[in-house]
Amino acid sequence: MSDNMTARILLDGHGGDGAPDVVLDALQQILTSSSTKAKFGVCGLEEVLTPALESRGLLDQVEIVPSAEFIEMTDAPAIAVRRKKQSSIHVGARAVRDGDWDAMVSAGNTGALMAISKLILKTLPGIDRPALASMVPARDGGTFFLDIGANVDCSSDHLVQLAVMGSCYLQAAEGIENPRVGLLNIGTEDGKGTDVIKATAPRLQASNLNFIGNVEGTDIFSDRVDVIVCDGFVGNVALKTMEGVASLILDTLKQELTSSITAKAGALLSRKALKRVKTALSPSEHNGAPLLGLNGIVVKSHGGADAHGYACAIEVAIREVEAGLIERTVEAMNTMAESDT
Amino acid sequence: MSDNMTARILLDGHGGDGAPDVVLDALQQILTSSSTKAKFGVCGLEEVLTPALESRGLLDQVEIVPSAEFIEMTDAPAIAVRRKKQSSIHVGARAVRDGDWDAMVSAGNTGALMAISKLILKTLPGIDRPALASMVPARDGGTFFLDIGANVDCSSDHLVQLAVMGSCYLQAAEGIENPRVGLLNIGTEDGKGTDVIKATAPRLQASNLNFIGNVEGTDIFSDRVDVIVCDGFVGNVALKTMEGVASLILDTLKQELTSSITAKAGALLSRKALKRVKTALSPSEHNGAPLLGLNGIVVKSHGGADAHGYACAIEVAIREVEAGLIERTVEAMNTMAESDT
Repeated sequence: MSDNMTARILLDGHGGDGAPDVVLDALQQILTSSSTKAKFGVCGLEEVLTPALESRGLLDQVEIVPSAEFIEMTDAPAIAVRRKKQSSIHVGARAVRDGDWDAMVSAGNTGALMAISKLILKTLPGIDRPALASMVPARDGGTFFLDIGANVDCSSDHLVQLAVMGSCYLQAAEGIENPRVGLLNIGTEDGKGTDVIKATAPRLQASNLNFIGNVEGTDIFSDRVDVIVCDGFVGNVALKTMEGVASLILDTLKQELTSSITAKAGALLSRKALKRVKTALSPSEHNGAPLLGLNGIVVKSHGGADAHGYACAIEVAIREVEAGLIERTVEAMNTMAESDT
Repeated sequence: MSDNMTARILLDGHGGDGAPDVVLDALQQILTSSSTKAKFGVCGLEEVLTPALESRGLLDQVEIVPSAEFIEMTDAPAIAVRRKKQSSIHVGARAVRDGDWDAMVSAGNTGALMAISKLILKTLPGIDRPALASMVPARDGGTFFLDIGANVDCSSDHLVQLAVMGSCYLQAAEGIENPRVGLLNIGTEDGKGTDVIKATAPRLQASNLNFIGNVEGTDIFSDRVDVIVCDGFVGNVALKTMEGVASLILDTLKQELTSSITAKAGALLSRKALKRVKTALSPSEHNGAPLLGLNGIVVKSHGGADAHGYACAIEVAIREVEAGLIERTVEAMNTMAESDT
């Protein structure tokens, strides 16, 4: 990052359901309500971004990084990567690679964002593949969960790398000194699970990570673990299962609470409580899925995030930059290579 | 089953948190409140079961099948299988194998129940490994989900067998004529997922199952699919994730609803609605996890189930017997072998 410790954050002006309005509303929220010293840019079509910034009175405070095109949510990632080389994601990733900006935030097509970031930024030394991670709600605030879909098949090497990346992220972005790392399994006893998992546990045990052993699906929401590591297939299914259950419960509750006069009155009185529950569980409260293991900071915002959610993703990027996530990860991978022989 | 179409159900008098009381209370519920013609037996230590049946006035209606010992929840399954050959599960499985009883229900140690059932009953022709399945709550009542932990690594053959077993189960136990079968994946498009899954989809497509394609974690709770097939690692993680989220949400709600006078009054008024939500999502409403693919009917009740939950598991066993699940599965596997060449 730049010498004076001012994080320089570049936002993708396209991608996601409400771009560029959601992106710029989020930026406006941060500029008016927080005391951040960060400097911001928006990448995308000038003819779209200029009037949108102007109408918000932000034209002087935010730099436009022009791109000739952008990737639609419907574009096939593999094709967008090769054919849309002047897209806002391509231009943004190159700007981060070249050191003009410290981080990029995008609500665009996840597959394309991951592929382009990997192509342009490359992975850090010792990291084979970048990972996609997410903070999920838990009894102690949140559990950091990775991989959530970038890597369908993971070897033991990959799982060890995920553990290092996740641990460094929590140190950098959440200030947790010694994050507790768990390996997702179908039982807590040794000897459970697939061959890959059985080979991974002793390596994590021997490392200087704070490895607490195997954890189960129920532990994701507990207060006993900070980072949970699993392959991207399992992580993606678990994450979507969470979304599905939460939505089923809240819908059932809503239905039941409007089914009788008494319940309706009850719902009215307990409205604030219900709202707080919904907020605590809302994905937008935990928005900002970092792409980890890249030689550059990239944060993915949920495509359906509102301005508040998008602002959370921007804040994740600022914290990653300010805490030196990249340098931390490089150092931790070196330490792991020494212990893991 | 016996010629006069009376299902003969043998209950394991041991295993689970509240045995034998929960088991016999459940049986009493069924005998007094339902019009079932089924005949019941309880397997276990005579000195324990005789007074327990007597105190409930059930000694004349229920046969005791004596066993010399039983498996504790803390016994290691592999050791219990070999060293406790006179356990209630061993004796019960042999009684089903020998045709004396049509089905066994047990709340005992899942690993031991699966291993002993497989050893004594064997699998059906064409089925390599038995599966463990569960009905999970969904918008249309329930989704049948398998495997949930019996088979950690599944080949494409195993997934195809799971699809057949799941489809036959829903036809037999729930009377769904043409169950919609989905393959759990990380996206609905073709070409997503692991190599095993990519090899499985076309085989299910070519079969005469009602295969609707790939489904995602969120679809488990939707009304678009009846049977979801996945390997036991993924299924176990997803199931425990569901449990974890549901418990987190309901606890958060409880906490919020007791945090202020207004909310407390609201909670009081909406108590019935909240209770109905809890009931709809309760595992005991969906209790009775069938062990499928065995040459004999075995149903696992949750170890912590109450009498109502255990009664649900007994009813699952009765329906499986009455609808001829075994014969249906054999026939469907033959049909699959013809299409899948």
